[in-house]
Amino acid sequence: MSASLVAELRAACRNATVWDAAELAARDPGFDARNFGASALVRPRDTEGVAALVKFCAERGIGLVPQGGRTGLAGGAATSAGQVICDLGAMNRIEEIDPSARVAIVEAGATLGLLQEAAAQHGLDPGIDLAARGSATIGGMVSTNAGGIMAFRNGTMRHRVLGLEAVLPDGRVFSDLTRVLKTSAGYDLKHLFIGAEGTLGIVTRVALRLDPVAGASAIALVGVPDAQSAQRIVRHFLRQTGTRLSAAEILWQRFAALMQRTLGYAPGSLPLEAPCLLVLGLGADSMEAARAALEDGLAAVWDQAGIIDGLVASSDAQAEAIWRLREETEQIERMHHLPPSFDVSVPGGALDDYVARIEAGLKRVDASYAPYVFGHLADGNLHISINTDGPVPHERHEAIEDLLYEGLNEAGGSFSAEHGVGLDKRDAYERHADPVKRELARRVKAMIDPGNVMNPGKVVG
Amino acid sequence: MSASLVAELRAACRNATVWDAAELAARDPGFDARNFGASALVRPRDTEGVAALVKFCAERGIGLVPQGGRTGLAGGAATSAGQVICDLGAMNRIEEIDPSARVAIVEAGATLGLLQEAAAQHGLDPGIDLAARGSATIGGMVSTNAGGIMAFRNGTMRHRVLGLEAVLPDGRVFSDLTRVLKTSAGYDLKHLFIGAEGTLGIVTRVALRLDPVAGASAIALVGVPDAQSAQRIVRHFLRQTGTRLSAAEILWQRFAALMQRTLGYAPGSLPLEAPCLLVLGLGADSMEAARAALEDGLAAVWDQAGIIDGLVASSDAQAEAIWRLREETEQIERMHHLPPSFDVSVPGGALDDYVARIEAGLKRVDASYAPYVFGHLADGNLHISINTDGPVPHERHEAIEDLLYEGLNEAGGSFSAEHGVGLDKRDAYERHADPVKRELARRVKAMIDPGNVMNPGKVVG
Repeated sequence: MSASLVAELRAACRNATVWDAAELAARDPGFDARNFGASALVRPRDTEGVAALVKFCAERGIGLVPQGGRTGLAGGAATSAGQVICDLGAMNRIEEIDPSARVAIVEAGATLGLLQEAAAQHGLDPGIDLAARGSATIGGMVSTNAGGIMAFRNGTMRHRVLGLEAVLPDGRVFSDLTRVLKTSAGYDLKHLFIGAEGTLGIVTRVALRLDPVAGASAIALVGVPDAQSAQRIVRHFLRQTGTRLSAAEILWQRFAALMQRTLGYAPGSLPLEAPCLLVLGLGADSMEAARAALEDGLAAVWDQAGIIDGLVASSDAQAEAIWRLREETEQIERMHHLPPSFDVSVPGGALDDYVARIEAGLKRVDASYAPYVFGHLADGNLHISINTDGPVPHERHEAIEDLLYEGLNEAGGSFSAEHGVGLDKRDAYERHADPVKRELARRVKAMIDPGNVMNPGKVVG
Repeated sequence: MSASLVAELRAACRNATVWDAAELAARDPGFDARNFGASALVRPRDTEGVAALVKFCAERGIGLVPQGGRTGLAGGAATSAGQVICDLGAMNRIEEIDPSARVAIVEAGATLGLLQEAAAQHGLDPGIDLAARGSATIGGMVSTNAGGIMAFRNGTMRHRVLGLEAVLPDGRVFSDLTRVLKTSAGYDLKHLFIGAEGTLGIVTRVALRLDPVAGASAIALVGVPDAQSAQRIVRHFLRQTGTRLSAAEILWQRFAALMQRTLGYAPGSLPLEAPCLLVLGLGADSMEAARAALEDGLAAVWDQAGIIDGLVASSDAQAEAIWRLREETEQIERMHHLPPSFDVSVPGGALDDYVARIEAGLKRVDASYAPYVFGHLADGNLHISINTDGPVPHERHEAIEDLLYEGLNEAGGSFSAEHGVGLDKRDAYERHADPVKRELARRVKAMIDPGNVMNPGKVVG
């Protein structure tokens, strides 16, 4: 991109911050070095500014890549020379919290953490939570249909969005800031933009439903022989009307041991010896009630579920230590550089079989391979990292993917649960998504973005 | 449609039941006389049978109208001569209940009631409920994005669908029977078919999430001065972690009085004198706990919310009597023939202002007009019937609609909350839906159904 084009960009986007390639090169691109490969970055201040930028790029056939918190794990925000970044970071206002209607209106660049804080002041919560809460933006979470810890109860981001505003590839604004749950007033086209990773338009504002927070939440760490046992415990708590299960995270032993080591926890400080560890969060009207309900519930299923050991956190510090075990997954990077990582939804009760199958299969790919497995038990969403430096050669990566994704689609699972397709799962998408669905998706893309301006090369290619 | 064409239809749809126009004329079309205006009805036995019928109609340019329980209130299933009905009534199997994964796989023609019964055997529930449960089908509920009583908690049908299968206008099968909550694996195109009222394809199978049922649910009838007071009560119960609010229905006085009279309830048998009546359902681990929580909660907010009177049902019979007041809305038909009826979502806390505005506005349209107003308080969904015989002349109907829908879209509400657009709200759609959204919807329709075979004339025209 020529200097004169960047000058034109500055002229067209008057109220926006504009960085050229040299300025980009001097900045931190975040987790993924490809984020700042573009020729320019523009940070508009409002929807009109985004629309002006979209029109500029559309008229010239320049690829435009939206970026939020740059926490994505599938290369959805990756850029290359000649492309322009639309950075939503300046559009980060919580515009409104309506405590009576339990609705938030936020700009796309607001972080989840900011929204959680604003909602908490009214005893409310967006009902969705994930480890990257401090930097992940609402717009990015909408665009990847983020899931996180509470999806088994509250649904994914798609289920939290009441309405949204997006700039279309032709610069027009799709405005559907519905604030109510119930609408059956024609095709609900906002769902095209949710999970589309910016390939059909740029989400600029979102209306989200909020839920009342639980009085208090207690945490338990439970050692079990396998996922089936953990699921039995979870079903027990889900059946209780008087408490509210808020987290059911599972850590297989290899992952738990790695985390204990890298976090520097003293051996024996937490009961982490069982083949599987279950982290439970339980809400009740008070902390005493929540802890008592956890104790009672675990005692009630102890024998039947074959529980090995268990601990209900007796202090905030202990609860936090347990959470860090699950959440500080960047610790894996201290052991392995860019390890191949995956994010699948395994349907039904098949988690143990699935993990056994991939353990054995990975050994066949490379005798040294052993996966770190952890994730969201109650919705079958597993995260898998392999104990090797990456990126591995393309053919080997493909062999690993085919192993991990085999049969998932047919069984009703997903080869990408909550991280999206981006660039990195493009091959997997072509090989594992349903052909009729892919064909329809291509036609939707061609219809809405005929110039292939919006995040080109991602998701549908 | 000629007799030879019906013969061809019979030959093309070998395993299906086929009725010609004469046979249709001899049958009960249900609530809407237009349902059986078609030249033929075909009732396929399976997805392949639906696909064969779709291909037959597509090749000949014959309009095909899907029908489920024929309980729709917006003319979405209306037909005319020359058209063919695709009746899903023979595809009514509950194919699977997976109690461990809390997932149901059902054919589109299964009724909600059938699914509720099958799920209840495992202590589970589809999480959505409405008065027409005995005849409304899952396919129809998906196609209209039905809402009902529990949407404020569990979302609408769209939020309950994990996956679906649909026959496209070209006869191909869109197969996405995802069984997991989390998937971010490309455009989630199943949402195109949800709420599209059969205009983009025919939904044939659905995967739905199920939730554990509450231990027991108690019912209260509360008299309050206005909706604001009722909302205050609802917020109090929503904030309790130890119980689960399962219903918050509101009946304005004129509606409550009509129902009391037509149901033949003795005056004074229930406290129904207040300007607004609130029906609360509250789940807890036992009936005693649920009733006690209702008593305690009402006592706690009594003065602050200005409660006039209240009654916690002390028997199943009393609870049922309260529910009949809310649900047997066909009683309105005993007073008025086809009264003009509406279904709006009013955002935020604006219910009292909205009702006052339309009461006054309707008087200006016709001094004798007074609305019966009732609905789902917690999501702002009001049902409105006018005390006159219908249908009223087109211009008058338009004037009433403009009055009722004015400003709703801009405020984030909806002119059709849960009944769909069908045929009867086509005018309202053109006048009240966002123009960018309408233009995009037309392009989606033209792309997926270029021959305009699927339910022509409905929703998008």
